[in-house]
Formats: sequence, structure tokens, C-alpha cells
Amino acid sequence: MTASNDEKWINKKISRRDMLKLTGIGAAGVAIGASGLGGVMKAMGYDVFEPVADSTTARNKVDFYGTHQSGIVTPVQTNIYFASLDVLFTSKKELQELFKQWTPLVVRLMNGELMVDLTTNTRVPTGDTGEAEGLNASNLSITIGVGPSLFEKLGIQHLKPAELKDLPHFPKDQLQKEYTGGDICIQACADDPQVAFHAVRNLVRAASGKVEIKWSQAGFNSFPTGGGTPRNLFAFKDGTGNPTAEKDLNKVVWVDKGWLKGGSYLVARKVQMHLETWDRTSLKDQEATFGRYRDSGAPFGKKKEFDDFDVEAKDSNGEYIMPDTSHVHLARKSGARILRRSYSYASGVMTNTGAHDAGLMFISFQKDPAQFTTVQNSLGRMDKMNEYITHRGSAVFACFPGVQKGSYLGEALFNAL
Amino acid sequence: MTASNDEKWINKKISRRDMLKLTGIGAAGVAIGASGLGGVMKAMGYDVFEPVADSTTARNKVDFYGTHQSGIVTPVQTNIYFASLDVLFTSKKELQELFKQWTPLVVRLMNGELMVDLTTNTRVPTGDTGEAEGLNASNLSITIGVGPSLFEKLGIQHLKPAELKDLPHFPKDQLQKEYTGGDICIQACADDPQVAFHAVRNLVRAASGKVEIKWSQAGFNSFPTGGGTPRNLFAFKDGTGNPTAEKDLNKVVWVDKGWLKGGSYLVARKVQMHLETWDRTSLKDQEATFGRYRDSGAPFGKKKEFDDFDVEAKDSNGEYIMPDTSHVHLARKSGARILRRSYSYASGVMTNTGAHDAGLMFISFQKDPAQFTTVQNSLGRMDKMNEYITHRGSAVFACFPGVQKGSYLGEALFNAL
Repeated sequence: MTASNDEKWINKKISRRDMLKLTGIGAAGVAIGASGLGGVMKAMGYDVFEPVADSTTARNKVDFYGTHQSGIVTPVQTNIYFASLDVLFTSKKELQELFKQWTPLVVRLMNGELMVDLTTNTRVPTGDTGEAEGLNASNLSITIGVGPSLFEKLGIQHLKPAELKDLPHFPKDQLQKEYTGGDICIQACADDPQVAFHAVRNLVRAASGKVEIKWSQAGFNSFPTGGGTPRNLFAFKDGTGNPTAEKDLNKVVWVDKGWLKGGSYLVARKVQMHLETWDRTSLKDQEATFGRYRDSGAPFGKKKEFDDFDVEAKDSNGEYIMPDTSHVHLARKSGARILRRSYSYASGVMTNTGAHDAGLMFISFQKDPAQFTTVQNSLGRMDKMNEYITHRGSAVFACFPGVQKGSYLGEALFNAL
Repeated sequence: MTASNDEKWINKKISRRDMLKLTGIGAAGVAIGASGLGGVMKAMGYDVFEPVADSTTARNKVDFYGTHQSGIVTPVQTNIYFASLDVLFTSKKELQELFKQWTPLVVRLMNGELMVDLTTNTRVPTGDTGEAEGLNASNLSITIGVGPSLFEKLGIQHLKPAELKDLPHFPKDQLQKEYTGGDICIQACADDPQVAFHAVRNLVRAASGKVEIKWSQAGFNSFPTGGGTPRNLFAFKDGTGNPTAEKDLNKVVWVDKGWLKGGSYLVARKVQMHLETWDRTSLKDQEATFGRYRDSGAPFGKKKEFDDFDVEAKDSNGEYIMPDTSHVHLARKSGARILRRSYSYASGVMTNTGAHDAGLMFISFQKDPAQFTTVQNSLGRMDKMNEYITHRGSAVFACFPGVQKGSYLGEALFNAL
């Protein structure tokens, strides 16, 4: 069969069987220009933006539409695939097209659907890479943000919020450029590693030639059988102090001004944990490092994980009950709050030392990255944990507000242009 | 408190409260020499080997004791942490001590228990790194094997089975020494990534100074909501052709002679999949690469995944129904069978190209590694899949037979010495 016959076959096939199927999808809101069906990239390059509806029947589904993006206050899932992308274009229009293109695809992914439903036409690359076929939505959340470098690249510095800038250098930073920065982030979290990876893979693929992955990191959280906060690889519960009440979230997490109103800043830090050193330390020292008991997660002097504590409280000898070099003491004393949403990673061994290449893909959300900086500066050189960790990567992104039906990711930014 | 006071405190504490606890554990079969309690490594260095019993109450538990080791015909779990270790000693006695030391620890891990129960004594490093606390056994299986290099190092070449040798070079091999070989393997598989990692971390830690990790790899499998065979990152089902019947397992998997009787050979191959190239290929070409339909997993010309097929069958034009360059055609034609037990990995991007550093941690079990070599040679340069993959790592291990109560891992090897 010649190429030209192939083309005819495609057109014929598309004009009948597939279009019938597409009509079915169209009812749910997707319109795919038939003219673009020479390849899947074209097939997914919508000329007209039309929204896809949240599924009402999908299993284990997180809603896409709402005041805020998913993946911020969404209950933490078991897996993350975090990708930091660089854009390959320099025009605002292409950026807008990218987010218009991605919006319905994100909805479909979060619905647990394939990107497009074109598998009956086997002559072109498939519209979906397929490895999530048969898996359910798995509580997939997708959070999209833009980094400071993007605004420079596109010549729209005037729209870059003052808060959006690279983090300052901190003690114990040994940042490697292969884990640092990026123009756009995709944070895909799900209760299945393949669903999270599939989401990033397919969004990047759909934007082939427009973006490339600068760095990415997979991670996991394991939830206790009886429920509760997961433990990091130091065996301590991570995320206990998070804000949950609406008023705290408004105070700590959600931006309340400008085009980012309803959005949040994501800080990502790839933190290597020196497990071998940690494992040679006594439990007493480990607990003094955190200022919490390992097993219960309770702060020093308390019984239960979520018990409140007075960081200034002292014992009868006049010593701080919670050691003043402990991580929790210093973080609390900074007065700044953040929403932690981290995942562990275990990526083999360091080829030079044979030590575990493992640690924490630290992620926090805040209404201003300065909150993170304040906490980190308070930890400073005092933090007893410095002995056991090295920061290898760093990035900051402005994550868009939520999307209303009929709108698309980042619309407020483009309206402000 | 001085060091010497600390030591006294430890001894006092141990001689009362902890020993009461240890007595409780002792009833289940663990004996820990009190003399060794200056640190946890000593605490775990049993002078007298005594077995630990399989738990009868643990949730999601795989049995340790039996004719064969777990993790071979055990139903595939969602996660693997595979570690290849080098030994730091040169005596047979130390090897034997290592396996005697590990045996009860492996049982405890598979029971979902902590390695030792010493957390009330906070002045010494903890007996367990703790990150699996609160998680259940998660169907953890642990499979231990020895590589060809071990026999050279210890001067026991006469006991190395003729079958146990490094694999030959294959087309498309671009092996990197940081993912190749090793003296001992620990294959930890579980339905939780943290449980699998915890097992390897703690076994290596317990053998601190005796072994070091040469290389390791985490991986995952995602099972369809309705059950069935997981898909690899090319979106094809992996492991469909596996033997399951007892007589097939005896023919394909279990060694039937010498000290390895009841054991099996593990072949590990770290196979990078070039996802970007694959994703630019039509579904038709992808299916012709495998010789199976992607969605159903059925072999060409059949309807269902497990339908049998005649590799020599031709259509009315005299063409093979299953293309003679397809992976399944070539593998089947080799006449050799293996038990595949692979996991996907997605470890970020290649720093030089930005392409996905993702693929398959291929693992197969067979009674002779030559079965794998026969299949791989049959694939040879013909295999249409060569275009899409590169083999980055390789190793082969003789996995011990199962352990009976009162025995220990590899006892038959030491009896043969």
C-alpha cells in the first residue's frame, strides 16, 4: 500500500467510522478538526477551544473544574510524577495555545479517559500512549504552573508577579542545574505511578516541538494501614503541621490579588537524605533533630501527632522542651506557615559512593514563596537536620487559579496581557 | 550525661524492660545475645541461629518457608526494589554467617514486623529504620541469589554451577558497569514501594561492613481495575506467555540438581525504552513489533490475550499471520521458555538528551540462564523491537531453594562445601 493510498484509507476511515466515534465524544464537548488528522499531533491541535466536562461516573476521580487547581489541597496521593519543562517558543500566542490545548486533555486525563479515542485507525501514531488503559482515574490531580524564566523568554516581564523569582541560596544547598528551574511545571499526583507518569508523558507528547522536559522526578507516599500521615525515609511523619481550615488556607496558600488570584506558589526542592548517616544515629538524636517522637509523631512533651505545642515552653531546668536546634522548633519559630505536599524518592545509588540516592521531593504551596524562604532561613545553619540532608534541586512556579467551565488554564494571565 | 553513664543506662535498661520484650519475641523464635547490645549491628549479630516463625495473623502476607523462595512464582506485586550487592569479605564463613543472620530478618520483614523491637531504648541506633512502621506486610517477597563473581571472590569456584556465568554480549547491548553484575542480589517485591525499599535498606544495613550496594533499581506494575496482566510503558501486556502449571514450572523454572535443587536462575536486564521514538510509531507498526494487539493483548489472528497460537500459521497470501520479525514470533520460535517477572521504571530524563529515562527492569526466572540466552539470540538482530530499546544493565544470579524451618538461606551450598 503506497503512502497516497494510505492517506486515502485514513480519510475514508476517518470520514466514517471514526467520525461516528468522534461525534460521540463531541457530545461530551471535544471537537477535533478532521482536517488535522494526518497525525495525532494535528489531531490534537484544536483550532476551536471547547471544554470537556468532568466525568460524573469515573472511579476515584478528582474534579478538574473549581476555584482552585487540583493537587494543592487535594488529599495527598500515593504517587507523584513531577516534571519541569522548558518552552521552545518565544511568543505569548503559542503559550496561550498550549494552555488551551492542554485544558481539555487535562480534564480527560483526570476523568480516567484516554487522550483521544482513535485507536481504530492503526495507520497513525496513537492518540494516547496507552499504558493507562484499563486503569481508573486513580485520583489523578494535575497542577500546572509557570516559572520566572518563562516571563523573560516571552518578553512579558511586566506580568511577572514580584513574588515569582528564583529562591536565594540557602546553607546546605548544592544545587545541580539538572534538577533546578524550568519554565512550566506539571505536577501529576495519583494513587498509581503509571497513571501519574502517563499524564505527564501524554501532555508533553501533545506539545511535542513546543516544550521539552528539563527535569522530572517520581516519588511515593505510603499510608499507614489504619490511615494517617505517611512517614518519610527518615521514618518521621511528614506534613503534620499543615493548614486545613478554609481561613488558614486563605491566609497561607491562596494568592488573593492580580491574575494569580486563587492560585498558589509551588516550591519544589529535591532533597537528598543521607540515609546511611541517619541510620547510624540514635533514636534520641533523631527525635531531637525533628523535635517530635518518631513512632507517634507527637511534638516533644505531647502525646499525639496533632497535639498543639508551645515552641517556647521550657522544662523545670529551664531547657526548651522542644530543642531549639530542632527542625520543628526552628520552622515554627519563623512564624511563617506553608502547606507541605512532599513525596519520597529512592532512585538507586550514587554511582560515586554507593550510598542511597534517596530522599524527599519536597513540595510546598504558599501564597508567597517568601514564606518558604522565611522558614528556610530560620532553619539556616542551626537546623540539626543539616547534617543529614543536601538540597540538590530547586524551582518555584506560579500555579494558576482553578478553571471554570468554558475557560482554560491561565486565562487570567492572557486577559491581563 | 557522659558516654559511660549512657552505657550504664543502656545495660540497665536492656537488662530489665527490653529483655522482657525480647523474651516475648524469643517465644516466636528470636534470640538476641544481650552481650551484643552496645549497638544495633551487634544486637543483630546472632551467635546462635534460631528461626523465626511465619506469622499466621499478618495482613497481606507471603510465606517465607517452603520448597521454593518467594518472589518467583508469587503473584507479581505492584512494586520492586532490586539491589545487586558486592561482598566486602573473602571467607566462606562470613558468607554463611551473613545468610544465617539474614534468614530470621527476612522472615520478620515478610511478616510485616520490625527488624527488632528495641525502640524503647533511644540511646542506640534503632534496630529498624522505621519507615515501614504502620504499613502491613504488603505481600512482601524477598528473593536472594548469588552471582558468578561471588564464587571467584571466595575461592569456591568448584561449587559454581556450570550454568552460572555472565551472559554473552547481545546485539543492542550498551551495558553500563553501574547497572551490571554483582555478588548477591536481593529482589524485594511488595504492594507498597516503601515496604520493598525498607526491606533492602534494612538487610543491607544489618550487614553493614560486609556488603555494599553495587546498583539498585525501583520499579512498578499497575494492574487493570478489573484485574489482568499489567501493561509496560509501551502499553503492551507483559508476562502473558508465562508458565503456570506445576509441570511447566518444573520444566522451565526450577533447578533439579546439585545444591541449587529447588532454586532458580534470575536474569536481570535494565532495558531502556525509547518512548519518544515509540510514540511516533503507528499502532499498526507497534502491534507488528510485538505480534500482539495492544488493547486486548491477543496474539495476531486471535481474539483474547491467552489464546494459543501457531507461530508458523500463514494467511491466504502465504504470509506469516504473526510477522516473523515480531518479538513474540522470534521468542516463541526459539523453543525456549522463561518465566518473566518484570517491572517498569521511570527515573526522570537522560541529562544529555532530555529523553525519558524509562523502561523495563526485565527479570526472568529459568532453570538455566541458557534459556534466556536462547530467546535473546533468537531475537537477535531480527527483532523489530530493537529500534526502540537499549539494554543498559545485566546480571545473573543463582537464587537459593526455599528454606525449611530450622534451616537458613543457602544451607545446601554450605553443606556442599
